[in-house]
Amino acid sequence: MITAVDVIRTKRDGGELSTAQIDWLIDAYTKGLVADEQMSALAMAIFLKGATPREIADWTAAMIHSGITLDLSTVGKPCVDKHSTGGVGDKITLPLAPLVAVFDVAVPQLSGRGLGHTGGTLDKLESIPGFQVDMTEAQVLQQLKDIGAVICAATGDLAPADKKLYALRDITSTVEAIPLIASSIMCKKIAEGADAIVLDVKVGSGAFMKDFAQARELAETMVRLGKDHDVDTRALLTDMSIPLGRTAGNALEVRESVEVLAGGGPEDVVELTVALAREMLAAAGRMDVDPAAALKDGRAMDVWRKMIGAQGGDVDAELPVAHEFEEIKAGTGGFISEMDAYAVGVAAWRLGAGRERQGQPVQAGAGIEILKTVGERVVAGETVFRLHTDTPARFSAAMETLEGQWKIGAEPAHRGPIVLDRIV
Amino acid sequence: MITAVDVIRTKRDGGELSTAQIDWLIDAYTKGLVADEQMSALAMAIFLKGATPREIADWTAAMIHSGITLDLSTVGKPCVDKHSTGGVGDKITLPLAPLVAVFDVAVPQLSGRGLGHTGGTLDKLESIPGFQVDMTEAQVLQQLKDIGAVICAATGDLAPADKKLYALRDITSTVEAIPLIASSIMCKKIAEGADAIVLDVKVGSGAFMKDFAQARELAETMVRLGKDHDVDTRALLTDMSIPLGRTAGNALEVRESVEVLAGGGPEDVVELTVALAREMLAAAGRMDVDPAAALKDGRAMDVWRKMIGAQGGDVDAELPVAHEFEEIKAGTGGFISEMDAYAVGVAAWRLGAGRERQGQPVQAGAGIEILKTVGERVVAGETVFRLHTDTPARFSAAMETLEGQWKIGAEPAHRGPIVLDRIV
Repeated sequence: MITAVDVIRTKRDGGELSTAQIDWLIDAYTKGLVADEQMSALAMAIFLKGATPREIADWTAAMIHSGITLDLSTVGKPCVDKHSTGGVGDKITLPLAPLVAVFDVAVPQLSGRGLGHTGGTLDKLESIPGFQVDMTEAQVLQQLKDIGAVICAATGDLAPADKKLYALRDITSTVEAIPLIASSIMCKKIAEGADAIVLDVKVGSGAFMKDFAQARELAETMVRLGKDHDVDTRALLTDMSIPLGRTAGNALEVRESVEVLAGGGPEDVVELTVALAREMLAAAGRMDVDPAAALKDGRAMDVWRKMIGAQGGDVDAELPVAHEFEEIKAGTGGFISEMDAYAVGVAAWRLGAGRERQGQPVQAGAGIEILKTVGERVVAGETVFRLHTDTPARFSAAMETLEGQWKIGAEPAHRGPIVLDRIV
Repeated sequence: MITAVDVIRTKRDGGELSTAQIDWLIDAYTKGLVADEQMSALAMAIFLKGATPREIADWTAAMIHSGITLDLSTVGKPCVDKHSTGGVGDKITLPLAPLVAVFDVAVPQLSGRGLGHTGGTLDKLESIPGFQVDMTEAQVLQQLKDIGAVICAATGDLAPADKKLYALRDITSTVEAIPLIASSIMCKKIAEGADAIVLDVKVGSGAFMKDFAQARELAETMVRLGKDHDVDTRALLTDMSIPLGRTAGNALEVRESVEVLAGGGPEDVVELTVALAREMLAAAGRMDVDPAAALKDGRAMDVWRKMIGAQGGDVDAELPVAHEFEEIKAGTGGFISEMDAYAVGVAAWRLGAGRERQGQPVQAGAGIEILKTVGERVVAGETVFRLHTDTPARFSAAMETLEGQWKIGAEPAHRGPIVLDRIV
C-alpha cells in the first residue's frame, strides 16, 4: 500500500519515487486525500534532493492526467503555443500571438496573472477597456479558427493538481526548483493540446533563474518533457539582466506592444518578438515566411485589432494613465552602463503594477518608463526613469528600490545579445 | 519585516535563523498567522539542513513561551521529571514514579498516548478499571503534595505550538530530526516546571534512534537544553534492540509493572527502573537511599496503590484479558539468540495494542507475552510468544511480522547491558 508518509520519506532520504508512487500521489492530492501539509513537505524534499529525469517525466504526466486536455484538432491549422518563464517588461506575448497568426498558424495563449515582481499577461490586457479574459473552450476554438490568436485565462480544469501545488509553492519557498518549475509549466502547456511549444527561458537578475547553467538545465528539462509527449518543443535562452523594452507596468506595456505592432517600438522587443515568431513558424513548418515584414506592413496589427475586438476590448480607446508621476534624473552626464532588471520589476510592483497576494487588484496605469536604457548617452539633468502610480505615497519605496541599481559610466557600454542560446 | 517565506528560504538555503526570526515564527504559528503548509516545508528544511545549537535553544525557548508553565514550588519537595524517547515494552514509568516518590521526591509524569509501534503510558494505565488521566493543575499539585506521584495527560496549555507541530511532523515524515525531537521533548518537560529531568534515550531497532552516535547526539542536545534553562538534566542511553521485559501491550504491561512493584518481575525491567530511580534521586540530592530495597519491601507498591486510587482506579480489580490467544512455538531446541524489538512492537500494534491514527481506541488486553527471551534456553515445541487480541483476524498479520525476526542458536547468547552510557 502506498502512503503519503512513505512517499515523502523516500524522497527525503534521497531515493527515487516509483511511477506507481507518483501516479498515486498526484491522484490522491487532486482528490484531497493527500494534505497540503504533506505536499509542502514533499516539495521541500524535492527542492533539496532533486528528481531524476524519469521522476520528472512521470510527475508531469500525472499532473496532465489530473484534469482535462484540450483537443485543438478542429481548429484545422497547426497550433503553436509559447511560454515565457517571466521577466521584467516581458510583454512579448502581446505582439507575438497576432504576428504568428498572420501566417495561418494558430496561437492559443492560456495565460496567468502576475505575482511579485514579474507582470502577468492577463493583467496587462485587462488595461484595455472592455477586454475579457474568461472564455469557454468553444469560444477559444472558434477564435483560433476565425482569427488565429487567443490570449485568455487558463481554465481550472487543465492540470488542477498543478494549480493547487503552485499556490502552495508560492507560500512555502519551494518555487525555484527545476523539477517543479519544469513540470508545472509543461503539464499545463501539454494539456493545452498544441502541436508545438516554444519556450522563452529567461536568465538574469529579473528572472527566476539568475544563472546561465541553471536556466539551460531548466530549458533542456522542459524540451525533453515536451518531446516525451510528442510535442515539438524548442527553447530560447534570453537575457533578463536588464528590463525588456522601455516599460514595466500594465497599460504602459500594452502601449509599447502596440508601437511594435505598428512597426516601431524598442529594438530589443522587436528582436525577441521576431526570434520567437521564427521558432514558432518553423515548428509549424513555415520556414518560408518573414515575420519582421508583417510587423512593418500592418498585417500583425490587423490580427491584433481583430483579437482584441473579438474578446470585447475597445482597441481605439485611450489606455488608462496613472494619476501621478515622478521622474528620476541623471546626476552626471555619460552612458547608462547598468540597469538591474529585478530592481525595476520590484519598483514597478511597489508602484501598484503588481500584487503581493493572489486576488489583489492591480493599478492599470502604474509602472515605470525607462527613457534611457543601457548603452545610451545621457546628459546631467536628463530624465532616466518616469514613475507612475495612482498612490503617490508609493513613490519613495519605488525610488529607494532603484537607488544604486543603475549606473552611469564614462564610456559607451555595449549591450549584449537578447538570445543567448537555443535548445531544440 | 520578517515573513514565513523568508524564514523558510533562509533555512532551505542552509542559513542560520536569527533569534528574532524564530521568536516571530513560533509566535505567529501559535496564533495561526503562519500556515501549517509553511511549517511543514520548514520542518523538512530543518530535517535536511539541520540546526545549530543556538537555533535549537531559541526554538525550544520560543516553544516554551507559546503557552503556560507550571509552578511546582507549592509542592514543597524536590520535583523530578522523567522522559523516555519510547521503546517496545517500555513500562518503566509505571513502577518508577511511585518508587521515587517513596523518598519524598515528587514525580509529575505528564504523559502521552501511543502512536505506531511504541505504546503510550496513558493507554496502559487506562486498562485499569476507573483510572482517570485527565486532571486539573490544582489536582496535580495536590496529589504531588499528598502522594508524590502523578501520571496524567499533559494539558493543551503547555507548549501549544509544539502540539500543533508534532501532529504535522507525524504526517509529513519529519519526525526523526534531532533538532525537532530534542526541542519537542524538552519544551514540554521544561514547561512542566520540575527541578530536574532524567532522560531515558533509547537506542536500537525498537527506538526512534537506531544508531548509537545519533542517540548520543540527541541525549547531549537535550541535556544542554535543560541546563540552558537551569534544570538539572541527565540522560541514560539504554538498549532497545530487544523488547524490554516480557510483555508489550497495555494491560499486559500493567501486570508486569505490578510484578516489579511486588518485588519480582523481569530482571531487565527492574534493572532499568532502579538505574533511572538512582539518577532521579541523585538529582534531588538523595544519594543516600536504596531504591532497590523499596521495590522489595513493598514501599513502592504502597505509593502505587495510593496513586492509582487517587486517580479513580480500582487497584484490586481484574485487568482486562483479550478474548483470544495464539502461541508461537520453537521449531528446534537451543538458545534464543536474537529478537527484534521493532518487529515485536509492530506485531503488538497490529494485534490492537496501538493505533494508526490519533484518536483511535486501543484494545486493553491485546499484545504479546514473551515467554522466552534472548539468552534463554528453549526445547522444541516450547512456547516463545503468546499473542493476544480481541480480533482474531489480526493474528496472521502479527505472525507474519514476527517471522524471521527472532532466532534460535546452538550456543547460549549473551545479552548486553541495559544502560549503555550516561550523559550528565
